[in-house]
Amino acid sequence: MIDITHGIRRHDVRAGAVALRGAVPYMPPGVHLAIVDPDVGRPSRRAVALRTAARNHLLVGPDNGLLALAAARLGGVVEAIDIGDSAYRLDPVCATFHGRDIFSPVAAALAGGARLEEAGQPFDPAKLMTIEVQRPRIDGDRLVAQVLTIDQFGNVELNVDHEQITDFGLRLGMQVEVTVDGVISTANYCAAFADARRDSLLVYEDAQAQLALAVNHGSAADRLGIGRDAELRLRIA
Amino acid sequence: MIDITHGIRRHDVRAGAVALRGAVPYMPPGVHLAIVDPDVGRPSRRAVALRTAARNHLLVGPDNGLLALAAARLGGVVEAIDIGDSAYRLDPVCATFHGRDIFSPVAAALAGGARLEEAGQPFDPAKLMTIEVQRPRIDGDRLVAQVLTIDQFGNVELNVDHEQITDFGLRLGMQVEVTVDGVISTANYCAAFADARRDSLLVYEDAQAQLALAVNHGSAADRLGIGRDAELRLRIA
Amino acid sequence: MIDITHGIRRHDVRAGAVALRGAVPYMPPGVHLAIVDPDVGRPSRRAVALRTAARNHLLVGPDNGLLALAAARLGGVVEAIDIGDSAYRLDPVCATFHGRDIFSPVAAALAGGARLEEAGQPFDPAKLMTIEVQRPRIDGDRLVAQVLTIDQFGNVELNVDHEQITDFGLRLGMQVEVTVDGVISTANYCAAFADARRDSLLVYEDAQAQLALAVNHGSAADRLGIGRDAELRLRIA
Repeated sequence: MIDITHGIRRHDVRAGAVALRGAVPYMPPGVHLAIVDPDVGRPSRRAVALRTAARNHLLVGPDNGLLALAAARLGGVVEAIDIGDSAYRLDPVCATFHGRDIFSPVAAALAGGARLEEAGQPFDPAKLMTIEVQRPRIDGDRLVAQVLTIDQFGNVELNVDHEQITDFGLRLGMQVEVTVDGVISTANYCAAFADARRDSLLVYEDAQAQLALAVNHGSAADRLGIGRDAELRLRIA
Repeated sequence: MIDITHGIRRHDVRAGAVALRGAVPYMPPGVHLAIVDPDVGRPSRRAVALRTAARNHLLVGPDNGLLALAAARLGGVVEAIDIGDSAYRLDPVCATFHGRDIFSPVAAALAGGARLEEAGQPFDPAKLMTIEVQRPRIDGDRLVAQVLTIDQFGNVELNVDHEQITDFGLRLGMQVEVTVDGVISTANYCAAFADARRDSLLVYEDAQAQLALAVNHGSAADRLGIGRDAELRLRIA
Repeated sequence: MIDITHGIRRHDVRAGAVALRGAVPYMPPGVHLAIVDPDVGRPSRRAVALRTAARNHLLVGPDNGLLALAAARLGGVVEAIDIGDSAYRLDPVCATFHGRDIFSPVAAALAGGARLEEAGQPFDPAKLMTIEVQRPRIDGDRLVAQVLTIDQFGNVELNVDHEQITDFGLRLGMQVEVTVDGVISTANYCAAFADARRDSLLVYEDAQAQLALAVNHGSAADRLGIGRDAELRLRIA
């Protein structure tokens, strides 16, 4: 059993989906159980177990988008099972803690060798919920990006991936103007924190190959006064 | 090795006892090690290992009430051993960290197959410390309840169990008046958070089958301004 | 896999080194992986795997002093390997998360039986970075000590070890004057928290055999208004 994180903020399905997407490529094949479940107890919220195209990877959790990005990273879903009434769930099932009564026992049964087809009712994978991650857009010489996640250190990950960074023309050593609510800050595009002066703002490609902002020994989120979903405009200076 | 929680508040023996009681029914047989130990180093505080009536469950920890509710849930204690001078403890034992020097090594020895009788000195289980969990009382048409625990989300668990909820006459969909320090709030009795409007107060039977208060996407403890041991009066509206 | 702690404060290499030194004597032989790595991505910061004189203990982490105190506790380093270009690291290596791309995969390979010599390039252990832990000094009848670590409860560990405590002449039951920035507090030298009155300041030898300050049911750091690296003067009253 490997704990990836217990640090996802309450109700933040998207942050959970992004964290799981970042983790699965580094996990061994197995059953990946993830739960951020604000709608637990609502009948329309399906409980699911998914087989992905990548061999021997199963995903278990609520069908609210939490599993969607990881499933895509693992090649997409080839088999979807509704486990709400699974023979492997506990009995009774309480209304507010399906993590204990449905998701964990079904995941444990699958990890112990139970066959996915026997864990519940199959349904069309095309009916799975997705999760929206907005794409950055170009506005003149600006790249308009959004905050994807903010970690415990205040490092700010943007919705700009490796290819989009390259397309925008960013190269190591360039200066970048970062505009938030009309306020302009300047940052160097660095490879690592250690390349920036202490307390200075830097732009870098983070460990998930996404564009990110940080303050060396500080908090970029505090420095820029931004939170989740904030919009930033970047310009090469 | 399964970590149940490291999130019990400092010195809060009762919160630890309640959490352990809630967890043991879902744990496989084994050695359950629990430590909340404000009186570590005081000679009168016994270190104990307990065999319960439920087969193959052992409890290890300080004898300060922490193990009492879980022991009762597991059918009661049938054998009690004082492990303060156990042959399995480390040597020397420091005065302030028996978790490292007594409890963990003795629990590890027992998990590794050592016999309980050889872990220390037997004593009468009737001499074990207990822990008081006050029972709710009826006052006219009011149920007078106390806060049992408050979790990290501000969900408030009361000292009212499933049978007492039923006896009080609560049924799904009823409205409940909640009075704290003379201030009256209104809540719906729901099955799940998703049944209540966002930011509204709800009453529900939680995953431990105790009556609880929550604010959907918020904190009931903050909304009601209550902490541990607070008294609430409930009336069916 | 045993998690020792994820609670070291950001960038606090010394607190990590002290925690690791305290933990290794209680760990089974194996590969001890530790990461507090403010200079990740700086070419001058070596990534290392170390064999200690104590048999079958390996240390893996950044060469910034983090491993130095544990290595000394384990008898010193007898073999040092630079793993920056290890055949066991992932490819590619990102600039900001060597924990994922270098340290963990190399530690896993070693735990799985890979030979240390094949994990990278050997270098002279004398070139390893060290970490300074200041020694206390005597000034007249005062012992001048510094704060080594402050834990989550506000317990303050000083840079005074068991032998230095004895040399200073402290004996259980003595009263101690503690001076911080000219302000004098009084504390009893106790064996355990339970020996002190609630809310009173005490001095004790902690579980790492270091002199420490605590407030029973409170925070010594708050009471004394001190942080990391603060200097205190102690006098037997």
